[in-house]
Amino acid sequence: MKTVKIGLLGLGNIGTGAYKVLEMNKEQITSATGFDVVVDRILEKDIHRKREITVHPEQFTQNPNEILKDPEIDIVVELLGGIEPATTFMLEAMRNKKHVVTANKAAVAANFDKLKSCAAENDVTFKFEASVGGGIPIINAITTVLQGNQFYEVRGIVNGTTNYILTQMTDYGLDYHDVLKSAQDKGFAEADPTADVEGIDVANKLTILMALMFDRYIAPDQIPTEGISKITKKEIEEAKAQGCKIKLLATARNFDGEFEYSVKPTLLRDDHPLAGVSNEFNAVFVRGNAVGDLMFYGKGAGPLPTGSAVVGDIIDIITNALGRKG
Amino acid sequence: MKTVKIGLLGLGNIGTGAYKVLEMNKEQITSATGFDVVVDRILEKDIHRKREITVHPEQFTQNPNEILKDPEIDIVVELLGGIEPATTFMLEAMRNKKHVVTANKAAVAANFDKLKSCAAENDVTFKFEASVGGGIPIINAITTVLQGNQFYEVRGIVNGTTNYILTQMTDYGLDYHDVLKSAQDKGFAEADPTADVEGIDVANKLTILMALMFDRYIAPDQIPTEGISKITKKEIEEAKAQGCKIKLLATARNFDGEFEYSVKPTLLRDDHPLAGVSNEFNAVFVRGNAVGDLMFYGKGAGPLPTGSAVVGDIIDIITNALGRKG
Repeated sequence: MKTVKIGLLGLGNIGTGAYKVLEMNKEQITSATGFDVVVDRILEKDIHRKREITVHPEQFTQNPNEILKDPEIDIVVELLGGIEPATTFMLEAMRNKKHVVTANKAAVAANFDKLKSCAAENDVTFKFEASVGGGIPIINAITTVLQGNQFYEVRGIVNGTTNYILTQMTDYGLDYHDVLKSAQDKGFAEADPTADVEGIDVANKLTILMALMFDRYIAPDQIPTEGISKITKKEIEEAKAQGCKIKLLATARNFDGEFEYSVKPTLLRDDHPLAGVSNEFNAVFVRGNAVGDLMFYGKGAGPLPTGSAVVGDIIDIITNALGRKG
Repeated sequence: MKTVKIGLLGLGNIGTGAYKVLEMNKEQITSATGFDVVVDRILEKDIHRKREITVHPEQFTQNPNEILKDPEIDIVVELLGGIEPATTFMLEAMRNKKHVVTANKAAVAANFDKLKSCAAENDVTFKFEASVGGGIPIINAITTVLQGNQFYEVRGIVNGTTNYILTQMTDYGLDYHDVLKSAQDKGFAEADPTADVEGIDVANKLTILMALMFDRYIAPDQIPTEGISKITKKEIEEAKAQGCKIKLLATARNFDGEFEYSVKPTLLRDDHPLAGVSNEFNAVFVRGNAVGDLMFYGKGAGPLPTGSAVVGDIIDIITNALGRKG
């Protein structure tokens, strides 16, 4: 059987999740692709962390060029996070004719056109399913099977931390700061929660969705963005009394040539499909002129769901770019 | 620009929907595929019906061989419904090296292996996204991006007619027979509703889902199947009193080698994501060992949503089998 060699940039939570999915579902992946998919080298400083995966010390390197320039490596999987050096590494990988998979919304949102053009110029595939909605296969749907649609609208709950906080405030009548504190204690929220609670992470994801659905690139810092840190217990209770929930929504609409977009806490009636999306779950609602209303719901974060999306991208590259089964 | 020629079998409601999607979204489809997609010939007796699409009398034929054996036609789209002659036509098209797209759950469920093997033997693509869940891209998801998962479970509301009836009974305290009658008057239910209300249509869809997710072919008539025709107002009210809804579910589970499957009315707690799926909407809930819980929600029937799925399959064939853009 032929082998596909992966170079992995980063073996943190998400990297470990992707590695684990490749390991635990090896049989399915081999049967789906007809290839033996092997993680060859890993760029990672922290080689001693306990990870519950079979990884050998000689797989690690501290030198990115040992992956980016290794002619043996077919696919580079970037799971470092942050705009740089991730973007530079991805561009360099593409110039060396490697297909690239990433879960990095910040880098994709900041450098969408640059990354897409570089992939096209080098005739390689660039995939980023895990960058929006974690395990939810929304990017695949809007870029393949739903292409026979003109899209009118997208509305998404695409940040698990803020949705968890709002759900807990709603269900238990708790105060924002108390829930944030307990989420941090449980590891559901970062020590510095700014990117999540101020809507910056959501804006990154909306930039990616708008570029794909409406062919409009709007940088994250150009999106009117309001987070959830100022939401009070009183506002949540008033919403409840009206039969509504407050959700942090990424929204873009294209009606009759008028294009509107924002990230902000939004009142949704309890019977709206997005209102029932609780805690760490994410959901993306799209409206197309043929398909009508469609919603995708699932786990928007976490090592295994995100790993599922990364591995889905790897399988797609093997199936469609590296050659058919056999 | 190169042209892709479609031969259409059937121009009823679904055929007209697919034709309309190709017409109204021509620009998107051309831009996505790089090809001009043209419906060349149509097998249909009723050539005089008013359809709100631009179709010329010379496109119609009464002779299937003028499509199945025409060397100019690249893709045959089967939208006749029913097991025969649809299956024979699809097999004949494949033997003539045509890719095949269908929305026909009865034919796919009855002849799954035969159709898949024939496509493989003739090195053509066989696609049937519209056969389960109408516009919801569930088949694409489970056969591409989610292949890095082992599936534990699928639960689906995959019949709009019965979900409409159950929703109306629940929301307005109505009797089964009264709702069925009014659904028939509005055209939401067939004059002979047996296939819908007795769960036969749902069993067809479950056969397809099980074959794809668990690699187990179980014929529809081997699935324990119970419809909704015996559900009383009293049962609906008892469910409500317990904070539950009754939904007609297709279910298959694979836990520790035990494989269970059924079609039957099922009690769901109001906070279950499937409980909020009302009226003509469909939803499919899947559980994978990497992605966790995932749900797809949308319009499970209707000419345009079903047309969206058919056109998605056509785009996929052009992109992946007939050659890349350009």
